[in-house]
Amino acid sequence: MGKNLTSRAEDYSKWYNELVVKADLAENSGVRGCMVIKPYGFAIWEKMQQALDQMFKDTGHENVYFPIFIPKSYLSKEASHVEGFAKECAVVTHYRLKNAEDGSGIVVDEDAKLEEELIVRPTSETIIWDTYRKWIQSYRDLPLLYNQWANVVRWEMRTRLFLRTAEFLWQEGHTAHATREEALAEAEKMNNVYAEFAESFMAMPVIKGLKSESERFAGAEETYCIEALMQDGKALQAGTSHFLGQNFAKAFDVKYATKEGGQEYVWATSWGVSTRLMGALIMTHSDDHGLVLPPKLAPTQVVIVPIYKGEEQLNELNAHVEGLVKELRSKGISVKYDNRDTHKPGFKFNEYELKGVPLRIAIGPRDLENGTYELARRDTLTKETVSADGISELVVKLLDEIQENLWTKALNHRSENITEVEDYDTFKQVLDQKGGFVSAHWDGTAETEDRIKEETKATIRCIPLDQKREEGSCIYSGKPSTGRVLFAKAY
Amino acid sequence: MGKNLTSRAEDYSKWYNELVVKADLAENSGVRGCMVIKPYGFAIWEKMQQALDQMFKDTGHENVYFPIFIPKSYLSKEASHVEGFAKECAVVTHYRLKNAEDGSGIVVDEDAKLEEELIVRPTSETIIWDTYRKWIQSYRDLPLLYNQWANVVRWEMRTRLFLRTAEFLWQEGHTAHATREEALAEAEKMNNVYAEFAESFMAMPVIKGLKSESERFAGAEETYCIEALMQDGKALQAGTSHFLGQNFAKAFDVKYATKEGGQEYVWATSWGVSTRLMGALIMTHSDDHGLVLPPKLAPTQVVIVPIYKGEEQLNELNAHVEGLVKELRSKGISVKYDNRDTHKPGFKFNEYELKGVPLRIAIGPRDLENGTYELARRDTLTKETVSADGISELVVKLLDEIQENLWTKALNHRSENITEVEDYDTFKQVLDQKGGFVSAHWDGTAETEDRIKEETKATIRCIPLDQKREEGSCIYSGKPSTGRVLFAKAY
Repeated sequence: MGKNLTSRAEDYSKWYNELVVKADLAENSGVRGCMVIKPYGFAIWEKMQQALDQMFKDTGHENVYFPIFIPKSYLSKEASHVEGFAKECAVVTHYRLKNAEDGSGIVVDEDAKLEEELIVRPTSETIIWDTYRKWIQSYRDLPLLYNQWANVVRWEMRTRLFLRTAEFLWQEGHTAHATREEALAEAEKMNNVYAEFAESFMAMPVIKGLKSESERFAGAEETYCIEALMQDGKALQAGTSHFLGQNFAKAFDVKYATKEGGQEYVWATSWGVSTRLMGALIMTHSDDHGLVLPPKLAPTQVVIVPIYKGEEQLNELNAHVEGLVKELRSKGISVKYDNRDTHKPGFKFNEYELKGVPLRIAIGPRDLENGTYELARRDTLTKETVSADGISELVVKLLDEIQENLWTKALNHRSENITEVEDYDTFKQVLDQKGGFVSAHWDGTAETEDRIKEETKATIRCIPLDQKREEGSCIYSGKPSTGRVLFAKAY
Repeated sequence: MGKNLTSRAEDYSKWYNELVVKADLAENSGVRGCMVIKPYGFAIWEKMQQALDQMFKDTGHENVYFPIFIPKSYLSKEASHVEGFAKECAVVTHYRLKNAEDGSGIVVDEDAKLEEELIVRPTSETIIWDTYRKWIQSYRDLPLLYNQWANVVRWEMRTRLFLRTAEFLWQEGHTAHATREEALAEAEKMNNVYAEFAESFMAMPVIKGLKSESERFAGAEETYCIEALMQDGKALQAGTSHFLGQNFAKAFDVKYATKEGGQEYVWATSWGVSTRLMGALIMTHSDDHGLVLPPKLAPTQVVIVPIYKGEEQLNELNAHVEGLVKELRSKGISVKYDNRDTHKPGFKFNEYELKGVPLRIAIGPRDLENGTYELARRDTLTKETVSADGISELVVKLLDEIQENLWTKALNHRSENITEVEDYDTFKQVLDQKGGFVSAHWDGTAETEDRIKEETKATIRCIPLDQKREEGSCIYSGKPSTGRVLFAKAY
C-alpha cells in the first residue's frame, strides 16, 4: 500500500481516523472537539444534504432558521430535556472583550455580563416551541412542517471526527400537529424517509425500530431510529425521529382552538440526521485501500487519467478526452480529467483509490490507436480494456452496478451479523467473538437493560418495527418476553 | 389597503419593519437581536444561496466548514482585527450547567470553566489562517479557493431584521495566493461576482468601488464593495471583498516555499455577503402594497386563484388548472395553485400582493367558457384578460419583462439620485433634502472624512472603480483632490 493506511484487521479505529484525514475529508481543529470539514468531505456532505432536502420538500416540509442561542430559562422548561442536555453545553456569559488593564492582552469585559446566560443550541426544541406559541392559534394553523439546517454544539468529552464532535452540522425537523395520531404518523414517516435515504443513496442497510425508554431522546415519548451495522460489527445510530407528545407544548404553553371550539395542547415531533452520516458512510463501504463511495454520493464519479510521454502525446490525449468528458457530462455524470503534469499516473491512481472515486478511465497513445480505454472499478479493484464506442452507456451502467454491488455487499454483511441467541452466556460470547446485532428476548425493564450494558457494554439498539413477536424468556432475568430486540455495542 | 401597511412616505422605517413581519419573512426572537427567518423568507434566501453558490463554483471555489468557536488568543493575533471585533462578540466561558444547590433552577457550573474563553465567530479569518498554516507548504499548494456558508455573531446594540442582527447567515470566502497580484485580482473578481448577482438576480443596481481607509475591514489592506441605493435615498453596503495582504499570513506564520526555493508569506483575500441582502432586496423594489420580488428570486413565480361558487364549479376549475400547472412547470416556472376553500379570492389576492408573487392568474367559470385567464402583474399592478392559448409562453415572457422592468426602475431611481456637488453647503443641502449618493471631491484624509460624518452623518460609501478622474478641491477642506468619491447616509 502506497498510502500507508493501517489495515482494518490491524486496528479498525486507527484505520478510520487515518482514512478520514488522508482522504481529505476532515481534521481536528485548534478548538477542542471541533472539526474542520475539508473540501472533499464537504462535497460529499453537500450531496447528502441535497438529496435529503429534496426528500423533505417532497414530503411537504419547508426550511426555516432559528437563533443559535437559547436562553437558559428556556432550556429548563421541559424537565427531562434539561436533564439530558445541561451537562454538556457551551454557555455564553459575556458579550464583550477589552484590553487588560495590565497590558497583558485581551480579557473578558466583566461589565458586559449577560443578565441571563445563553446556551449554544444543542438542539432547538425549546426556542422553536417558544416561537410556535405565537404561530399557532387555531387548528387552521396546523400542521407546521418545518426543518432547519444548522450547526449545534454538545460538549462531548471524547470526540471522533464525524462520529462525535462538539460542534456538528445537522438538520432538525420540528413539526406541530392537531392530533396524537398525526404526530405519530409524521415521526414514523420521517424515520422512513431517513431509511430510504440511507438505503438508496448511501447503499447502507438500516433497521427501523423504536428506542427503549432509556435510550429515548430527552423529552420524547417515543423515538424512532434507523440503526446500521459497521464493518467491525459495531452498530451506529444513523438517524432518529421523535414523537414528543404534548411535552413541549405544555412546557411552552402552546394550545390551539379546535374545530369544535375547545382548547388543546399541540402535538409535536422532531427528527434529525447529522454529519455523523459521513462516519457511517465511510465505515460501511471503505477498505484497506481507502474510501469507497457509492456513485450517488460521489462528488466525482469518474476520473480520467492520461498516460503519456512528452507534451505532444499529452496534447493529443487532451484533445481526445475533451470529447469524452463532454459525452459523459451530457449523461449527467460528474467527471474530472486529471492531466496535471506534476504527478505520475501511478500517484494519481493511488490518490483516486484513496478518495473512493467509483470509476477510473486511463487512456494512453495505444488506446487512441485501438479505440479503447482502460476502465477500473473502485469497488472490486478490477480493470478491463473496453471499446471507446458506447463508453458513456457503459459508464452509466457500471455506476448503477457499483451502487447495487455496494448495497448487496453491505446487506450480506449485515445479514451474516444478526445472531439470534437464547441465553446470556451465548449472548456474551457472540458479542465478544462475532459482534454484530444480537437478537434476544428482554423483559422490558430498564434495570435489565442497565445491567446488561454494565456487564457487556452492549445496549438495546432498537425494538425493530418488524419485530418477531413470539413467546420467550429474557436472556438476563428469565422473565417472560413477547418479542426479540436487537442488542449491539455501538458507536 | 387591506394590509394595514404603513406607507413609505409616512414612515419608511416603519413600513420596512411591518413589511418584513407581515409578508412572513422574519421576526424577532426571544433572544436579543437574533431573528427567526420564516419559511417564506428562508425560501428567498435559499434562492439567493443557490445562485451565489453556483457562481462561486463556476469561478473555481469549493465549500468547506470551520468551527463556530474561535479561541480568544487567535482573535488577538492580528492587531487591527481584534480591535475591530472584540467589542461586540459573544464569549463562551463555561461548558456545563448544573442544578442550583438551593433548588432554584439550573445555574452555570463554576467547575466547568474553560481555561481559555471561546468567541462565537464574528468572521473566520483567524481560525482559517491558523488552519491554512498546516495546509500550505509549497507554491504547489496554492491557490486555496474556499468558501463557507455559516452563521456568525456580532453583538450589535441596535438591531433591525435582516439589516443588522446579532446573529446572521452569510458566506465567507477565504483564499490564499502566491502573489500580491493574484490575491488582488481575486478580491476584485469576487466583488464583480457580487455585482453580477445583485444586478442579474436581485435586479438591484450597484456601484463597485473601494472603501476609504477608515471604512475598510479590520485587517484588510483594501476593501472592494458594492453599494446599492434604497428607495429612501439611503445607501446600503451589499457585499465586500477584502484584499488582506500578508496580514493574516504574518499573524499566523503561514509561509510557502517558492518555485525558486525561497520562503514567502502567503497573500490572502476574504469576501462575504449575508442575509442583509434580504433587506436590500425588500427595500429596492417593494411598494405600499407589500413585497415586490424579481421573478428570478421569487419562490412562487405564478399563483393561480380560482373564482367559483360551489363545489361543482371548483371541481371543474381544479380539473382545468391541473393541466395549466403542468404546462407552466414544464417551462421551469414555479407555480402555486391556491384553491383553499377557507379563504375568499379577495383575501388571496391581497395575500399574494403582500408577498410579492410576480404574476397572478385568476380563473372563473366564464374564463373556462371563453378560453381566457385574468392575468395580474405585481410590479405594475395591472390586469388584463388573456387567451388561454400560448399562456405558458406569455408567462415566460412576462416574467422576463418583470425582471427587466424592476431593474430599469431601480436603475432610473439610482441615476436620478446621484448628485454632483462642488461645495459643502450644497452637499449638506442635497443630503438633507434629496438624499442619495453625493459625488464630491475629497482631500483623501481620514480627518476630513470623520468631520463630515460627524456633521452630516454621511460617510464615504466608496471610491468608485470607474471614478471620474479630474482636478478639483475638497468640499470640506478646500485642499486639492484628483477625483470624486461617493458620500451617502447609509444603513
